[in-house]
Amino acid sequence: MVHKFKVRTSAKSGMADITREVQGIARENGVESGVCHIFVPHTTCGLAINENADPDVQSDIIAKLNESFSGDFPYRHAEGNSPAHIKSVLVGSSLTLFIEEGVLQLGTWQGVYLCEYDGPRLREVWVKIIKT
Amino acid sequence: MVHKFKVRTSAKSGMADITREVQGIARENGVESGVCHIFVPHTTCGLAINENADPDVQSDIIAKLNESFSGDFPYRHAEGNSPAHIKSVLVGSSLTLFIEEGVLQLGTWQGVYLCEYDGPRLREVWVKIIKT
Amino acid sequence: MVHKFKVRTSAKSGMADITREVQGIARENGVESGVCHIFVPHTTCGLAINENADPDVQSDIIAKLNESFSGDFPYRHAEGNSPAHIKSVLVGSSLTLFIEEGVLQLGTWQGVYLCEYDGPRLREVWVKIIKT
Repeated sequence: MVHKFKVRTSAKSGMADITREVQGIARENGVESGVCHIFVPHTTCGLAINENADPDVQSDIIAKLNESFSGDFPYRHAEGNSPAHIKSVLVGSSLTLFIEEGVLQLGTWQGVYLCEYDGPRLREVWVKIIKT
Repeated sequence: MVHKFKVRTSAKSGMADITREVQGIARENGVESGVCHIFVPHTTCGLAINENADPDVQSDIIAKLNESFSGDFPYRHAEGNSPAHIKSVLVGSSLTLFIEEGVLQLGTWQGVYLCEYDGPRLREVWVKIIKT
Repeated sequence: MVHKFKVRTSAKSGMADITREVQGIARENGVESGVCHIFVPHTTCGLAINENADPDVQSDIIAKLNESFSGDFPYRHAEGNSPAHIKSVLVGSSLTLFIEEGVLQLGTWQGVYLCEYDGPRLREVWVKIIKT
């Protein structure tokens, strides 16, 4: 079974915290010990784990990715969103987390983020939990 | 059990669509609901999910990666393929996908690709399916 | 159950080979066929698979990442380690490997590495093995 939820992103690029949603699915699932796989069925957004404390970290990540993989390049794809596809390939479309005692296991400073590169859009997140 | 198949890449760098091969393994496996892990046992190629419609997206991804991580840097590794190793680390060597009703679950525009950074070569892809 | 071990990194940035530790956990676990998930609960280090033969490959990877995602950018995060967070997002915090006949399955030239971007620090690595 795949659990699905939606995320409405609010800007061209940014990081949306989905830790609470994923944690909620893990808790409701009732698995004591397991693995939680997260996947986005999109090619211009991605999933990442990073710092949940200072929001400047998220804006720094997005700003630097925008500079490193900017639109200033002789791209051939006519839609103009090739930089978003490149970030999608580099950051990745899935995450794997552990569940112990029914709780998603994250480091103190870790949060789970949907990374938007070509928004704003309504995105879908898929979660599958494996009992171990 | 690990399912293995080979991919012959045709150029120095490029993306080879392996969606059909992976989908075929998932179907033959007969698992109704599960997880499909894909892995490449190589250090100068990788695996990525991205757009399957316009081939310009793939050539844009490869071209921009070649520019961002070019050979124009004081590398110490004598074989001259350090950029390929760097892309391998950034893009990654594995993917995790879901299977429902016996079918690999992908978004409308998603395909599964072997990314070649130091070809042409004969590459191997490993697939393992977990029943859930 | 999650197996945990610590890695003391020795420099600001570098790659520490953890193949032996992970291989040891896989062997002690006694699983004949399975999947091995590795995860770091940190936001300024990561996990990667790459060449285990010539150490110059590792130093080339680190040097090029340091150049591509350098501190020379108007970052807002006051701690000065935004480049480390960006590398963490790009390289990733987890790996998935296969186990067959009780042995971690890696290509001839592949090793498993903890990538340090903001050291030296004492890092933790989490490993979870799924029987298949």
